[in-house]
Amino acid sequence: MAFHFQLESTDRTTAARAGRIHTEHGEVLTPAFMPVGTAGSVKSLTPDELAAAGADIVLANTYHLSLRPGAETVRELGGLHRFMGWRGAILTDSGGFQVMSLSPLRKVGDRGVEFRSHLDGSKHLIGPEEAIGIQDALGTDIAMSFDELVEMPAPIEQVRESVRRTLEWARRGLAERERLRGEGRGAMALFGINQGGTDAGERARCFAGLSEMPFDGFSLGGLWVGEGRDLGLEMVERDCGEFPADRPRYLMGVGDPVDVVEAIARGVDMFDCVLPTRNARRGTVFISTGRLVVKNAAYARDPRPLDPACDCYTCRRFSRAYLRHLFASGELLGMRLASIHAVHQLVGLVRAARAAVLENRYASFRSDFLTRYASGETLMPAASSGN
Amino acid sequence: MAFHFQLESTDRTTAARAGRIHTEHGEVLTPAFMPVGTAGSVKSLTPDELAAAGADIVLANTYHLSLRPGAETVRELGGLHRFMGWRGAILTDSGGFQVMSLSPLRKVGDRGVEFRSHLDGSKHLIGPEEAIGIQDALGTDIAMSFDELVEMPAPIEQVRESVRRTLEWARRGLAERERLRGEGRGAMALFGINQGGTDAGERARCFAGLSEMPFDGFSLGGLWVGEGRDLGLEMVERDCGEFPADRPRYLMGVGDPVDVVEAIARGVDMFDCVLPTRNARRGTVFISTGRLVVKNAAYARDPRPLDPACDCYTCRRFSRAYLRHLFASGELLGMRLASIHAVHQLVGLVRAARAAVLENRYASFRSDFLTRYASGETLMPAASSGN
Repeated sequence: MAFHFQLESTDRTTAARAGRIHTEHGEVLTPAFMPVGTAGSVKSLTPDELAAAGADIVLANTYHLSLRPGAETVRELGGLHRFMGWRGAILTDSGGFQVMSLSPLRKVGDRGVEFRSHLDGSKHLIGPEEAIGIQDALGTDIAMSFDELVEMPAPIEQVRESVRRTLEWARRGLAERERLRGEGRGAMALFGINQGGTDAGERARCFAGLSEMPFDGFSLGGLWVGEGRDLGLEMVERDCGEFPADRPRYLMGVGDPVDVVEAIARGVDMFDCVLPTRNARRGTVFISTGRLVVKNAAYARDPRPLDPACDCYTCRRFSRAYLRHLFASGELLGMRLASIHAVHQLVGLVRAARAAVLENRYASFRSDFLTRYASGETLMPAASSGN
Repeated sequence: MAFHFQLESTDRTTAARAGRIHTEHGEVLTPAFMPVGTAGSVKSLTPDELAAAGADIVLANTYHLSLRPGAETVRELGGLHRFMGWRGAILTDSGGFQVMSLSPLRKVGDRGVEFRSHLDGSKHLIGPEEAIGIQDALGTDIAMSFDELVEMPAPIEQVRESVRRTLEWARRGLAERERLRGEGRGAMALFGINQGGTDAGERARCFAGLSEMPFDGFSLGGLWVGEGRDLGLEMVERDCGEFPADRPRYLMGVGDPVDVVEAIARGVDMFDCVLPTRNARRGTVFISTGRLVVKNAAYARDPRPLDPACDCYTCRRFSRAYLRHLFASGELLGMRLASIHAVHQLVGLVRAARAAVLENRYASFRSDFLTRYASGETLMPAASSGN
């Protein structure tokens, strides 16, 4: 098995960590940010642009790919890496979250989730075994265990029931991977997902079960769904305090720069989030000094790049005025250029965090970042300087 | 003035030509195909992708840019080259065609065309002087004379009137450039546009007027608007027979591969067309053996590139199956990858034509191209070969 996690360093004064995940498709430096390629494409970007932005791993969605073009089609075409032309590592989610959020009709039972496709209404079932089978057919490097999540807030009985089911499905998923390995397949790593919402007791109970199972890493599930940053970070600190040091820890669905910096301080190694690129496609990007709404008319004559401190392709070559024009004109290139910056900005952020951990200065890195990010400097529009 | 046309070679058995246009922004090899960057962006593509596809000149639309972001804004930001990050040459149209086709309300008089913006209904006037002023503010390398075109078929009196006005406007445009040059501006080249529809006599009369004026090149206007390929090519042959050998000849709005190859045989040096990239964004591309509708379900498992004979980025890296999936999923990357191929295919075609002219074998190049293009070979879907 190619998968191997190497913890390189833990910061002296925070719980921040630096490591490397070895995969069949290269090394993933941690902390890592994974751009989201839902349907086998990080929207508007080529694999080369992702690599140029520093990404070494992307996330793809099992639910979407299993419905279209279908996991078997991807397998026949040589697997997802070859299909989408991506040479780095791939992590796939289990499909559980997407089934619950996108399917118009679904029925959850111990067997799995029966649902109708949001594309054509066709009926499907994904259970823990199917989730493993699909991810294996896609050829992912890191698969996720199929879990049940509960819409919060929920009565405690419901949270307990979802923890029970998540544990049962976790066991069945591991068993299915073993079965596949007996057939010479199932080479992928598999992460367990901790659930329990914001109930510390349930999260502890869930992890007590998961920790007995031979997972290659652990994900923090059911967070950043409306509970607020403070409570979310409290749960992150709780989970990371229990998770074993020698396995990677993945906080699902988090990509706000402040959240990322704070979660790294509590011991998280991996992140994914659609928001940076989704916001970018709508004309808003994070820069080192805050949130820039470049589509605003105020930037129509601003000759500066999105972020004067950034060295991404977009910031090296184009002005805010040009990007504003592209957004005002509905030009696709605007979405692309903003997305390139967005990926570069987050990957650059976790890379800088990693360097700080390796040099035992994460606390000052965090406080410097937060101060600068709150400053709003360089956000104010500038007039053209003329020619 | 940086502009200079050098005729390198004329084919022995056809009227095909090979040349070079020297501009302040590099050399343009002819025959040349100009991708269209209407609003200062060739839709979905970066300047670097255009350059990688071999383009050395792009076309931008005066009408669109003058309305948004405004010619003065572009000038303040350092001109169109800097604004859009394009290091090659730029040709701008005069705005005449776009005013007539896009503005909901317009009034044509000798002064120029009064119209309302299709964006916000605001009132504007563009006449021959304004067209020169705007193109100068944009900083174009090659400007077009403001012309009047008539929707065909039209009564001969109307065609005559439009020829009269086109000639008057041509004189006034040149005078305006002289005036600007007196102020240290107006460095751009200026092409006259021949009109007269498909009336050979009117085209001859129009050119008799234009030929007395010191234009840097001549455009063939009012063609490929529904008259059919045979009649269009007849007019091309007619015009090119009269145009001086030492000035470049530009056939406006033509980009079908067969039309391009046939027009080159009759002496045309430059082309532009939105169709190759517009079709590409809709899932149809030209390949060397015909027209490929890659969004068709038939290609869902076809592991071959769009064109097995093409070495563009898209064809080197991605399968028809992947592109089909991107189009089926509404992914922006599909439009991009198809557009990259489309530009590469047409620029590659005119480059191959140029090589044939330089080697005095354009007749066989043309017949080989036409045979292959009509063959449909490699268009048939192939099933996945598995892994």
